[in-house]
Amino acid sequence: MQILKTVQEVRQFRATCSGNVGFVPTMGALHAGHAQLLKSSVSQNDHTIVSIFVNPTQFLAGEDLDRYPRTPEADIKICELCGVDAIFMPDANEIYSQIEPKILAPKELSSTLEGATRPGHFDGVCTVLTKFFNIINPTNAYFGKKDAQQLLIVQHMVKSLFMPINIVPVDIVRSSDGLALSSRNSYLNDDELAQALKLSRSLMKASNLIKANKLNSLEIKDAMNSCLEPLKVDYIAIVDKSLKPIDSIELGNTIILIAVYVGNTRLIDNLWV
Amino acid sequence: MQILKTVQEVRQFRATCSGNVGFVPTMGALHAGHAQLLKSSVSQNDHTIVSIFVNPTQFLAGEDLDRYPRTPEADIKICELCGVDAIFMPDANEIYSQIEPKILAPKELSSTLEGATRPGHFDGVCTVLTKFFNIINPTNAYFGKKDAQQLLIVQHMVKSLFMPINIVPVDIVRSSDGLALSSRNSYLNDDELAQALKLSRSLMKASNLIKANKLNSLEIKDAMNSCLEPLKVDYIAIVDKSLKPIDSIELGNTIILIAVYVGNTRLIDNLWV
Repeated sequence: MQILKTVQEVRQFRATCSGNVGFVPTMGALHAGHAQLLKSSVSQNDHTIVSIFVNPTQFLAGEDLDRYPRTPEADIKICELCGVDAIFMPDANEIYSQIEPKILAPKELSSTLEGATRPGHFDGVCTVLTKFFNIINPTNAYFGKKDAQQLLIVQHMVKSLFMPINIVPVDIVRSSDGLALSSRNSYLNDDELAQALKLSRSLMKASNLIKANKLNSLEIKDAMNSCLEPLKVDYIAIVDKSLKPIDSIELGNTIILIAVYVGNTRLIDNLWV
Repeated sequence: MQILKTVQEVRQFRATCSGNVGFVPTMGALHAGHAQLLKSSVSQNDHTIVSIFVNPTQFLAGEDLDRYPRTPEADIKICELCGVDAIFMPDANEIYSQIEPKILAPKELSSTLEGATRPGHFDGVCTVLTKFFNIINPTNAYFGKKDAQQLLIVQHMVKSLFMPINIVPVDIVRSSDGLALSSRNSYLNDDELAQALKLSRSLMKASNLIKANKLNSLEIKDAMNSCLEPLKVDYIAIVDKSLKPIDSIELGNTIILIAVYVGNTRLIDNLWV
C-alpha cells in the first residue's frame, strides 16, 4: 500500500491503475463504518484510493476542527487490512491556497437540517470533493448513508455538474447495541454512550410504527421525541429524497433524520424507509 | 462535422476520439476572433469540439441575454470551414435544472473590473465551464485574451480545483483599423463604430509611452483618458496578473484593461505588456 502526500504523487499512482478505480474520501479516525466503505470499494474495483484529510473548509468557526480525532497510524493499518492500494494524506496547503474558488451547494438542499446549524458546511464538502474527484479521477466514489444529507448533496452535485463519477451509497454500520458508528463517538464518556443509544432506539420506534402502518409524520415525531427525552433534540425531520418535509411516510422515498446533543456532542442518525 | 444537442451525444462522440481533444467554448455569433481560437485548436489537437451556448447564468438581470446576437447558421459554416469536428449546441434545460450548485469565482479576482459592474458574472462563467469541462473532458481549452479577466479566473479555477485541463490563451484579433473583434460590436451604428476606435488607440498610446520608458501608471492613465474623450469610461486599470493595481508598469506582468461605453454599448479591450 502506498502513502501519497502530494497531488503529483496521486496522479503518478493513478496513471499506473488500469480498470475501475474506487475512491473513499474520509477525515480519518477510521472505524468499522469506514471499513465497510473500504471493503465495498475494494470488492467492486480494480484499485482503491482512500483520502484522509480533515478538511478545514467544512468546519465552521468555533467547531471541532482542532480537536477532531486524528489517528493516522491506526488509519493506515485499517486501510492495509481492508486491501486499499493507496492513501492520499495531503497537508492543507497542498489542497488550498490563499485565493480560492468555492462550490456552493444548492440552497434548497444545503440550508436545511445540518446546514441550518452549520451554514457553509456543505459548500466546504462540495469544494474539497470536487478537488479530490479531479485529482483522483475515480470510477466509483463511496459515501455512507450515515451522512444522509451529504450523500444527497454529493449525488446532486455530481449529476448537475456532469462529473463522470458513480456515487455508491453504503449502509450505516451500528454497534451491537444500535449506536451508529461515528468518529465523534470518541468524545462521549460512558454515561453519554448509554444516553446516545436513545438515537437509534427512537429510529427503531419509528420503524416499528411504520411497520404497523402508522404513517403520520407528526405522530411518528411525537413518539421519537418521547424516546429521546431528556436529551436536547436539534431536529427530527421526516423528508423525501429532495429533503422536503412530508406529512406522511412514502415508502421507498422517505428519510427520517435526527440530530441530538448528548452532553456537548452533537450526534446525527437516520433511517431510510 | 457533427452537431450535438445532448450531453449523451457529446459523451458518445467523445468516446470515439483518440489523442488530444481541443475545446473552444463560445456563445456563438462567431467572428474572426473566434475563428482564431478554432484554428488554434484544430492545428494543435486531434479533434476539436466547439460549444455554442448563450449561458444565462453569466448575464445579470437587465443585461442583454435576450438580444445577444444569435447566428447559428453562420456559426456552423465558420466551424466547418475551420475544420471543427463537432459542435455542442444544447438547450438551456439540458445544462441547468431547477436546483443547482454554483461555482463561486474567488472574490479577489472576480469582484473588481468587470465583476464590479457585473456581480455574479464570473460565477456563471465558472459554473458553465465546469459543466462543459466535465461533459467534454478536453485536453486543451482555448480562451481569448480579449476577455483578460475571464482568462485569468478560468486559469485560476482550473489550477485550484485541479481540473486536468490545459488552458491555452489566444491573442486578441483586431479589425484593420484596430477595433478588437467582439460579438457586441454588432450593436454599434456607423458613428459608434468610428468612436469605438478610441479604445484601441488609447491602448496604442499606452504602448508607445511604455516603449518610451514612461512606466508610471497615473501618467499612462491620464494619456489614455485624453484619447478616450468624450466617451464615458467605466474603468482604466493597470494591474498585475493577480489583478492587483500597480503604480508602475512591470514588463511581462502587466495588463492594461479598459471598459468604455460607446452609445449604450459597453466595450472592453486590453493590452498585455
